[in-house]
Amino acid sequence: MKASLKSQTPVQPLSTSETGAGIRGPFQWGLNSHRPHAFKAPLCPSPPRLRFQKDPPNPAFVVSQSPPSRASSCPMPRADDYFQSYTDPGVHRLMIQDTVRTEAYRDALNELIQPGMVVVDVGSGSGILSLFAARAGARRVHAVEASSMAPVIEALAKANDYENIIKVHHCRAEDLQLDGKVDLIVSEWMGYFGLAERMFESVLDVRDRFLAEDGRMVPDRFRLKLFPIQDEGLHQVHGPGSWDDPIYGFDFGPMSDYEYAELSTTAPTILPSGALGPHVSLIDLDLEFCSAEDFFFDQKVELPIECNGVVQGIGGYFEVDLAPETSLTCAPEAPATHWRQSWFPVRPFKVCCGDKLELTMQAVPRFEGDIRLPDYLMDGALMRAGKLEHSFFHRHLGSYE
Amino acid sequence: MKASLKSQTPVQPLSTSETGAGIRGPFQWGLNSHRPHAFKAPLCPSPPRLRFQKDPPNPAFVVSQSPPSRASSCPMPRADDYFQSYTDPGVHRLMIQDTVRTEAYRDALNELIQPGMVVVDVGSGSGILSLFAARAGARRVHAVEASSMAPVIEALAKANDYENIIKVHHCRAEDLQLDGKVDLIVSEWMGYFGLAERMFESVLDVRDRFLAEDGRMVPDRFRLKLFPIQDEGLHQVHGPGSWDDPIYGFDFGPMSDYEYAELSTTAPTILPSGALGPHVSLIDLDLEFCSAEDFFFDQKVELPIECNGVVQGIGGYFEVDLAPETSLTCAPEAPATHWRQSWFPVRPFKVCCGDKLELTMQAVPRFEGDIRLPDYLMDGALMRAGKLEHSFFHRHLGSYE
Repeated sequence: MKASLKSQTPVQPLSTSETGAGIRGPFQWGLNSHRPHAFKAPLCPSPPRLRFQKDPPNPAFVVSQSPPSRASSCPMPRADDYFQSYTDPGVHRLMIQDTVRTEAYRDALNELIQPGMVVVDVGSGSGILSLFAARAGARRVHAVEASSMAPVIEALAKANDYENIIKVHHCRAEDLQLDGKVDLIVSEWMGYFGLAERMFESVLDVRDRFLAEDGRMVPDRFRLKLFPIQDEGLHQVHGPGSWDDPIYGFDFGPMSDYEYAELSTTAPTILPSGALGPHVSLIDLDLEFCSAEDFFFDQKVELPIECNGVVQGIGGYFEVDLAPETSLTCAPEAPATHWRQSWFPVRPFKVCCGDKLELTMQAVPRFEGDIRLPDYLMDGALMRAGKLEHSFFHRHLGSYE
Repeated sequence: MKASLKSQTPVQPLSTSETGAGIRGPFQWGLNSHRPHAFKAPLCPSPPRLRFQKDPPNPAFVVSQSPPSRASSCPMPRADDYFQSYTDPGVHRLMIQDTVRTEAYRDALNELIQPGMVVVDVGSGSGILSLFAARAGARRVHAVEASSMAPVIEALAKANDYENIIKVHHCRAEDLQLDGKVDLIVSEWMGYFGLAERMFESVLDVRDRFLAEDGRMVPDRFRLKLFPIQDEGLHQVHGPGSWDDPIYGFDFGPMSDYEYAELSTTAPTILPSGALGPHVSLIDLDLEFCSAEDFFFDQKVELPIECNGVVQGIGGYFEVDLAPETSLTCAPEAPATHWRQSWFPVRPFKVCCGDKLELTMQAVPRFEGDIRLPDYLMDGALMRAGKLEHSFFHRHLGSYE
């Protein structure tokens, strides 16, 4: 049985030898993935191993193997697993290796930070943004980190001679206490399709309590964009279309029905050529003034159809403005990020050039333990020459993958 | 912030513009991943949506959105999330699209099943193995599935005219009740490095209660293999070596120390050329006679070093014999599977041709809620001309990725 859906090696698509109908096209990713939220549970103590006990690699970090709720006094009811997932060095490697993301933040901080500023870095992770802020001239950087990465950030600050600038707060953002206001709040809070993880709630809490009146948010603007897509590869290898043709000679129609009742979002790479029409803004939020509730929208958009084809899903992505000269976009045309794009599958329907897709999309928070994801409700009407041609409704479970 | 570590699009490795030292080599995977266990939590009810309420896509499958513990009477304390992860159609697509895996099982069942046999399929998932067994001539196939895939398997059996052959048991394997013994137990229970998920425990429970004396297990033999590897790509992009050189001009040494105290296993693709010596069997279990405890081993192996180099980790994989003529191997030389290989990073050390690596490896069960992973303790001694040249100890957290 499988364990994870992450694929680094293309594996052969469905065998054509028995289905008769194969899957064609240059699909780089091969395997599909919908597997949601990843977490790391607290470790059980290891059995006694003499060599390890006598000479641990670095005693300062051994405590990091306990979840932060045990290591600190911060109450983190039901959110331990979420923060615990950030104890994994691989998570931070992933993000630092996303140079589009990391360099955009570096450039924005260099653009905005004036010597002497006080900065808060909400959810510091590896501490890279705090290090950028310190190097850009901040007088004080408050690095807020709930996971057991906190002592690592302290060690990094010291190793880079910023121990007098970077102050690490090992707590949740909601528990942060500061003397006075701050000039700039930086945070890299965006999950898949922006909303996954819902970390914006914590960032806005810090904003409301500590940002000076003329203070600055990084990012300060957030947009979600949608576009109709036809992509045989996504649909057939990565989505519900994979069940349409016989598989090893068996009728898998019931799995197709099941999947349309269980749709998840995914984060594949959508080729720009898959768009059947332009990208349209779903929401556009001013992060210095909006509230967390604004992220849970119920919004209607009109997606023009500009060529004949079959709509197999709605593509989506986010954009953030980090500074006047620096933005970060996950558009299919832009340099790749680890967020890729988002895909909301729909049951396919034909469209003609000149049609209009009226789409109402709702993002609904999910409140189940450590799950910090929205669900998306998508209600669509295909209009042709002013008449309703087709309608659909799908619920999509927001996912971490 | 990121959400998942799955990467389908290569993203640029660490920028060389500021580090001065870049990462070279044709690394296809680009991003790293250690993110452990994925699960899906029970869904909260969606807000009222008239169109959806009036016309759900398939009422039979809507109940599948509740975890099986609520839909069935089977007690599944603390394991709901594990089974819930198998409600995701994407998980089953992944496994069916792994043709090396799926065709090996098909071939083995065709080889072994005689008309009239009674078969149990433990953890049926998409039901594909039950369908193979029915088509191969089984008189009765008991498909045991704890997740809400169970009604989908029923629908599949009906759609393919096997509703009189395939009987679906919507319960945990431990709760299965049958009248009499069975001829064959088939299960695809292997997780990463074989042991992840620990589903073998359930399979052996069914074996002990229901397999006839001359009955047959598929698979019936399980081997774990290890080999020493040097792979600059894994080490630098995918592992702790990524912190060695300055990153954006900062010293990230503390992250390196942290990672060596927090090592996780990963499942990358290891090139055959990375091996510094032959593959050596760690364990070799007869699945018709072994017990679940045999999977939690404490085993010493000797890995010969056959060329000068730097050991950057221990590679590993599993092999299973499914039938006399059919095996399935995840060796680096073999056709790719979704399991890929496993990698246990170590702090690098130099070796010379003729050295011997004495390795003691222990697999320890982890007992934390839904976590069904082992931890690995690896104690190594490099012997040169009969003398201890170097020693190391690392704990590796087994992971789902």
